[in-house]
Amino acid sequence: MRPNYAVGVDVGGTRTAVGLVERKGRIVKDVMCLTPKAGPFAVVDAIIDLIEEVTQGITPSEIAGVGIGLPAQVDFHKQSIEFCTNLPLAGVDVRALVMSRNKYEITIDNDGNLAAFGEARYGAAKGARHFLMVTLGTGVGGGIFINGEPYRGSRGVGAEVGHVVVDVDGPPCPCGGTGHLESFLGRPAIAAAGTEAAKGFMGHAILAAAGGDASAIKAESVITAANGGDEAATKILVECGEVLGRGLVGFVNVLNPQLVVVGGGVGESAPMLVERATAVMQGEALAGRKDVRVVQAVLGNDAGLLGAAALAFDEHDSREGLHR
Amino acid sequence: MRPNYAVGVDVGGTRTAVGLVERKGRIVKDVMCLTPKAGPFAVVDAIIDLIEEVTQGITPSEIAGVGIGLPAQVDFHKQSIEFCTNLPLAGVDVRALVMSRNKYEITIDNDGNLAAFGEARYGAAKGARHFLMVTLGTGVGGGIFINGEPYRGSRGVGAEVGHVVVDVDGPPCPCGGTGHLESFLGRPAIAAAGTEAAKGFMGHAILAAAGGDASAIKAESVITAANGGDEAATKILVECGEVLGRGLVGFVNVLNPQLVVVGGGVGESAPMLVERATAVMQGEALAGRKDVRVVQAVLGNDAGLLGAAALAFDEHDSREGLHR
Repeated sequence: MRPNYAVGVDVGGTRTAVGLVERKGRIVKDVMCLTPKAGPFAVVDAIIDLIEEVTQGITPSEIAGVGIGLPAQVDFHKQSIEFCTNLPLAGVDVRALVMSRNKYEITIDNDGNLAAFGEARYGAAKGARHFLMVTLGTGVGGGIFINGEPYRGSRGVGAEVGHVVVDVDGPPCPCGGTGHLESFLGRPAIAAAGTEAAKGFMGHAILAAAGGDASAIKAESVITAANGGDEAATKILVECGEVLGRGLVGFVNVLNPQLVVVGGGVGESAPMLVERATAVMQGEALAGRKDVRVVQAVLGNDAGLLGAAALAFDEHDSREGLHR
Repeated sequence: MRPNYAVGVDVGGTRTAVGLVERKGRIVKDVMCLTPKAGPFAVVDAIIDLIEEVTQGITPSEIAGVGIGLPAQVDFHKQSIEFCTNLPLAGVDVRALVMSRNKYEITIDNDGNLAAFGEARYGAAKGARHFLMVTLGTGVGGGIFINGEPYRGSRGVGAEVGHVVVDVDGPPCPCGGTGHLESFLGRPAIAAAGTEAAKGFMGHAILAAAGGDASAIKAESVITAANGGDEAATKILVECGEVLGRGLVGFVNVLNPQLVVVGGGVGESAPMLVERATAVMQGEALAGRKDVRVVQAVLGNDAGLLGAAALAFDEHDSREGLHR
């Protein structure tokens, strides 16, 4: 039997979202809450409550299982959490705790892996077996798909594609390093460039996009101004695209993916950034790699939740000996 | 039956080496020639002749097969050569041509993959299932091992780990890009730094290592002087180590290997370079990745040949349904 539903859980540092997902990827119902800060059990309780909420009225046998994406280093084979920066989940057996309170099979994984999995199953990378996902948001993250599966490294961590050095003399990165992709492409870096530009006359559209308040300039102000045709804002995003493209040269030369998917709030809303990155990568990549396509992600914030559900479907089907 | 021998072939841009290898990795007999420049058939003829030479006197049933490493983009599943920079082998069915002239099973692969395979089976990475190999020579190359197998990307190319951008404003790279690891770490870059240093008094040991002839300064002159304790030469190699370390930060954050193996003529002879790279990587890598070990390769020029033989053993055993 192939149950038609799975539950996808996307635990973030800020919010936790849970959805009931049909096998074809439609989210039937979703709920969310702020991720509790009161310790690991509060996080687990919130997950359990939200799962209960979205599965109400559905026969348990119609639910393939629950996938949970965590912002953590997950040992996938052991289903254990090795390390977690923003939440106190290291060493906590989230899977067992959640399973003890409901009747579903639970599988946990790294959130970056699952966002890539979501795009692979239901989004911009549908059908691709080897691809790289780069997520441009407050941080820069992503995932690697190899042979149709998320690449988990030797310890089950997500591919931290934002933390590669692209400039040995570059600016500081929130992680403590310097000159990383995230140093140039994270929201704080784009906002800082926008704030700088807004000091001059040329930056008036960026300032206007922040309601005239220079201290309120965000990455989104720059993106809004650029999408409205402003030159100074466009220049900032094109320069970001240049840096991203230089980073992609390395990824494409080393990993030789079929496809690069650029997602995250910034990646999905700044087409000129992605276009410039594509051109730079295609100009500098080695022969046989220049034609790698670069596309924008399409699932937005739902990528992680959908990927978690896809994982739950796959785990169910492999437990039952079913093939996709 | 498990035949005790395999033949490893390592075709380079300059020389072609062929060895008869025992299952445990001992090279029983090896021969080499300059790689012919007279076209694809001359290369194939040379391979066939050398195979015949090393297998003389051995019963064919005692030979598991022949592995051939090529400096080319190889589609491993199709066993075809997609692209080859230094030799006219693109589109040439090397496997079929060699098989038509002897009785062995032939398997071809990319040479960087096979050097990593050699270190994995018989060298510095014995037992490691996830590791990165970086080969520092005239060029900078390498290979990635995932789940005990060479990573071949979506098209069977080796992982071109020398062609990642580590400095967006960096010097030109022989591949046409700029600021790549190879721009800083290839033999020409080290020789240029040595030549520059030799213009001043501090560079006298480098000059001496080149026999007093500034135009004869090579990367090896710098390495010889540094290994003799010279300060200027050591500074050059430590700076190279710094750049390599910054590159490794990205590889370790993205790929999360168990181990990094630094090989190639430069990598195996300049311990201070590898030490500095290790310290820099461990200082900047993300949590959970800082303890990745960095070791020097041990197989030298034999890595590719031994890896080719290991491939031939594995292909034989999997054809016969034997497990290692």
